[in-house]
Amino acid sequence: MKADKYLFDGTKKCDLDKLPTNSKQDGVEKAEIQKLTQLNLERMAELQEMLYAEGKEGMVIVLQALDAAGKDSTIKHVMGGFNPQGVHVYSFKAPNTEEQAHDYLWRISKCLPKRGEISIFNRSHYEDLITVQVHDFQKRYKMADRILEKDKKDFYEQRYRQVRNFEEYLYENSYRVVKIFLHVSKEKQRERFLERIDLGEKNWKFSSNDMPTRALFDDYMEVFDDVISNTATEHSPWYAVPADQKWYTRYLVSEILIRELEKIDPHFPELPEEERAKLADCRRQLESE
Amino acid sequence: MKADKYLFDGTKKCDLDKLPTNSKQDGVEKAEIQKLTQLNLERMAELQEMLYAEGKEGMVIVLQALDAAGKDSTIKHVMGGFNPQGVHVYSFKAPNTEEQAHDYLWRISKCLPKRGEISIFNRSHYEDLITVQVHDFQKRYKMADRILEKDKKDFYEQRYRQVRNFEEYLYENSYRVVKIFLHVSKEKQRERFLERIDLGEKNWKFSSNDMPTRALFDDYMEVFDDVISNTATEHSPWYAVPADQKWYTRYLVSEILIRELEKIDPHFPELPEEERAKLADCRRQLESE
Repeated sequence: MKADKYLFDGTKKCDLDKLPTNSKQDGVEKAEIQKLTQLNLERMAELQEMLYAEGKEGMVIVLQALDAAGKDSTIKHVMGGFNPQGVHVYSFKAPNTEEQAHDYLWRISKCLPKRGEISIFNRSHYEDLITVQVHDFQKRYKMADRILEKDKKDFYEQRYRQVRNFEEYLYENSYRVVKIFLHVSKEKQRERFLERIDLGEKNWKFSSNDMPTRALFDDYMEVFDDVISNTATEHSPWYAVPADQKWYTRYLVSEILIRELEKIDPHFPELPEEERAKLADCRRQLESE
Repeated sequence: MKADKYLFDGTKKCDLDKLPTNSKQDGVEKAEIQKLTQLNLERMAELQEMLYAEGKEGMVIVLQALDAAGKDSTIKHVMGGFNPQGVHVYSFKAPNTEEQAHDYLWRISKCLPKRGEISIFNRSHYEDLITVQVHDFQKRYKMADRILEKDKKDFYEQRYRQVRNFEEYLYENSYRVVKIFLHVSKEKQRERFLERIDLGEKNWKFSSNDMPTRALFDDYMEVFDDVISNTATEHSPWYAVPADQKWYTRYLVSEILIRELEKIDPHFPELPEEERAKLADCRRQLESE
């Protein structure tokens, strides 16, 4: 599978600098890939229907990336292939006052899916490991001294462990967590920002606040390396997917979702003998009406 | 402190058989204890006001016990000493259909307090370790085979670890979790059940369903031993408090809450210099009105 080379499952370190942001190295052809993506969307829908019918495992799909890497469009064009019944998208913005007064998983836990359902997190608890770390926001926390006095490195090592434990807990309680990082190049982000500024109908996607974050592009990449290396596990893997060409990103994300859903191996529930007998009864009644 | 001998902080095993359910061994006198309890309630209120004003740490108080051990009356008579602003009581009954479809911490996490506030859990996530274990309810779960096929002992060892991790996460995020088991004797439960049956205004507290649970009294004690031994830690301790005399239980619980609040050592926030200058300004304006 093409997505294999972008997989992190805890067995190796992540170094985004050495990973491609575009499709070139994979030697693929756009029209062919688009055709395959269409087929994948059908397979995804089929797997999700069985997941929902069976109701035994739930799935959390985490999407993380810098601005303009394509999170929204991936949700629209790939996750759009799912039946919206049983799928919920949650977008996590900067925490509001109430969220800040709580532990950082509080707003996340509320959005966990029922078993059989899928929650898609457009940004997630990883913001508390990434954005907070890049900007040193932990310095503004109102918390006990024993926490504020911690060395920064120790503080984030602790968070990595907390998140590993949280996702392990979910796996052990019949969930799968799949984490996807959309890996865009700085040059491609520049192009997309310019487009958002130039095209009226894209203006709403841009804010001048995106510029200071762009200025920290390299810091973000470094922190992403660290976060992915420390929170990728066998059962809650990360995928760092090239994001400079949306057609290729969509294909890879659809491949990843199929792979992860196939690990669950969902089936339509089979009725037990006595239930089947009841159905036969119902059939007779309906026929004799 | 009298509560010391009922403390479990992970350094020793719990054996409820060997622990008293009444005040006799402590050689205390009722009238004196009741006077001390009144003083304790005032101190508790004072500490809670500072906790709230400071807003740096939150507290979760877990109450677990068999029926008629006095959970409700402890909340009324001890936690009633707190200012209800900043204190919330949550009662966790048998999980409903929606709760069952989620991970077992889902309904708990939603009820975690803001920092500066206190959540009192009348029953809690420990039901998923205790009641579920005694009744083998895990066999009814709709989950992935990898979970249902687990050996029962392994399954609960895993849950103990999950809960330890969860409470460690809370401690590391500026919370304290205090867990209190109200230790009632089988004979005292019998008396209280009879009272609930005989007194009209207490009928609502009794259900004939309480009888099958009573029949499993010894099984429950064994599981409580195991759960307390495996989930008591330095920062999230258990207290197994004698519960045959309510006046003594109330005293001990008030002692425990004071101790745990004093560990936080809350203070009214001190204003920084420039803020104090602003206040002086406001004072001048008000005087000159």
